[in-house]
Amino acid sequence: MTSRDELQLAARNHGFPLELLREPITPVGLHYLLIHFDIPAVDAGTWRLEIGGLVERPLVLSVDDLKAREQRTLAVTLECAGNGRALLPDYEPSQPWLTEAVGTARWTGTPLAPLLDDAGVDPTAVSIVFTGVDRGFQSGVEHAYARSLSLDDARAPDVLLAYEMNGVPLPPQHGYPLRLVVPGWYGMTHVKWLHSITAIPEPFDGWQQTEAYTIDGEPVTRMLPRSLLIPPGIPDFLTRERTVERGLTTITGRAWSGFGEIARVEFSSDGGASWTDAELDEPVDRYAWVGWRAEWDAAPGPHELCARATDAAGNAQPLDGTWNHGGYCNNSVQRVPVMVR
Amino acid sequence: MTSRDELQLAARNHGFPLELLREPITPVGLHYLLIHFDIPAVDAGTWRLEIGGLVERPLVLSVDDLKAREQRTLAVTLECAGNGRALLPDYEPSQPWLTEAVGTARWTGTPLAPLLDDAGVDPTAVSIVFTGVDRGFQSGVEHAYARSLSLDDARAPDVLLAYEMNGVPLPPQHGYPLRLVVPGWYGMTHVKWLHSITAIPEPFDGWQQTEAYTIDGEPVTRMLPRSLLIPPGIPDFLTRERTVERGLTTITGRAWSGFGEIARVEFSSDGGASWTDAELDEPVDRYAWVGWRAEWDAAPGPHELCARATDAAGNAQPLDGTWNHGGYCNNSVQRVPVMVR
Repeated sequence: MTSRDELQLAARNHGFPLELLREPITPVGLHYLLIHFDIPAVDAGTWRLEIGGLVERPLVLSVDDLKAREQRTLAVTLECAGNGRALLPDYEPSQPWLTEAVGTARWTGTPLAPLLDDAGVDPTAVSIVFTGVDRGFQSGVEHAYARSLSLDDARAPDVLLAYEMNGVPLPPQHGYPLRLVVPGWYGMTHVKWLHSITAIPEPFDGWQQTEAYTIDGEPVTRMLPRSLLIPPGIPDFLTRERTVERGLTTITGRAWSGFGEIARVEFSSDGGASWTDAELDEPVDRYAWVGWRAEWDAAPGPHELCARATDAAGNAQPLDGTWNHGGYCNNSVQRVPVMVR
Repeated sequence: MTSRDELQLAARNHGFPLELLREPITPVGLHYLLIHFDIPAVDAGTWRLEIGGLVERPLVLSVDDLKAREQRTLAVTLECAGNGRALLPDYEPSQPWLTEAVGTARWTGTPLAPLLDDAGVDPTAVSIVFTGVDRGFQSGVEHAYARSLSLDDARAPDVLLAYEMNGVPLPPQHGYPLRLVVPGWYGMTHVKWLHSITAIPEPFDGWQQTEAYTIDGEPVTRMLPRSLLIPPGIPDFLTRERTVERGLTTITGRAWSGFGEIARVEFSSDGGASWTDAELDEPVDRYAWVGWRAEWDAAPGPHELCARATDAAGNAQPLDGTWNHGGYCNNSVQRVPVMVR
């Protein structure tokens, strides 16, 4: 962390305070937030969603039109693909996340697939492009924020166009009046301030699709498994180092994966030298993090607490992150140093 | 910005995105936030406010007790005393604010003075100590966050015990279920997660009162005047540098002071070499920032936009900040470099 650029980004955007892992649903204002450009001022009265391109019947929809359609609410865990970036050496300067770029909200909206059917998307369409109102430069290229999905991914039954978060209209910073929600995928996919959906006959070559959010040219897609624990005890203001009382204590946390349900969470109090299985709670929802707990007999002295998650597809968190240029997908285990007294 | 410590703080806490200066009242989640320790989990059902010390009739009040009393709503601008810190050289490491540690909310609660009367505070009390539930270490000293006011300052008619923010129950991060609101004072005074109010016969010597929030031993109190403008045009993601279209454009912003109303705002498009008076809007509320606007004929090329505020008490923003150990009260004028195309 050396540059004014990164400091500006860290002050504007914000992570999720890990003590709020105690709540299954993250309150508004505590969910992580990454905004590439500015938060646009959108007048929901005149705003319209345009669905066009390779479609038989282009659609223009108001917020009320969308609210009149089938409504669904899903609790979805959403994590930035750059979460863990600042734990890697020599990444390209960007939002310097440690481990806190995550949150779980209840998103209410209408499923996308029936809208694509109503528009009559041409089955030969290769990409469905989602474009936001927000506009700016990145690496010298001026563009509106836009991302694409394959037609199959866009048609997945739980992809939503969301107009509410936790039962209130989308806050401005989360995409008012409409955002895309693609359960299981990293946050860059969930286009905020959504303005148009366009079916095109070739792979989308937008900057955010081909330059950002790739590792060695391969696009980042679903969230790798990660577990985070609530740092126990009390913190120091500056260092955030924890002081914990000795004796039996219950360590709790939450874990998630975009590749399937969490099959196992393991806890370590010795920096990963030895592990014990944590007990998993009942899931909050199919696409939301799952709580877990582990008992720990805290003996006086320094300890390093860790947890690692394994999903049903067999993906497990590594002990150490793997470097890549953009600092993406570093799901190495969280390390929480504590001093027991 | 060099340390992991500061990065952690910048990722946890967050500033106010300046484009939201377009709104007189800051939406929940966009108000600046500085949390010294952790956000405590408070059960409002069992939580009580205790008023004691040098009083004739100690009081123990529930949230419902407080809501049954006189209710008042005030729009109050709240700024961190450390706003501008990271623009100073060699300050003591802390939350590295640039200029964005501010927000304006509608706080609803009950006035404090009648409660102090009901408790029968001894008129010889020197300090009224406000203590929060939140606890941790700072510079090696373990304490619950606590600040004091003189009896006169505590009795000021607009000091509130607030249980709502913008019409909803206080969010956890803003002090649920109760916080102190002291209009005009820097944010450190507005104790969150308020738990006890204690009248004592001597100056309060708590860490946050005597070690933090002082300049050369003098306590920081009211907000010095500051004006912020909405950076025009569109940003670059990483550098936040702005690109603006040429021609006549209206620059808008907001200004505030804890020492009285804003008497004047001046705008400069040449880095402070020359200034023109901005037009002031009608005030939102007595203790809230006031909007202003200035016309600017943007000519192609680089420019540095600035604004400076002067309050009715004659305090004006300096062009450059004055160094102090803790990096407090740097209200030097904001500088917004733009490139007009």
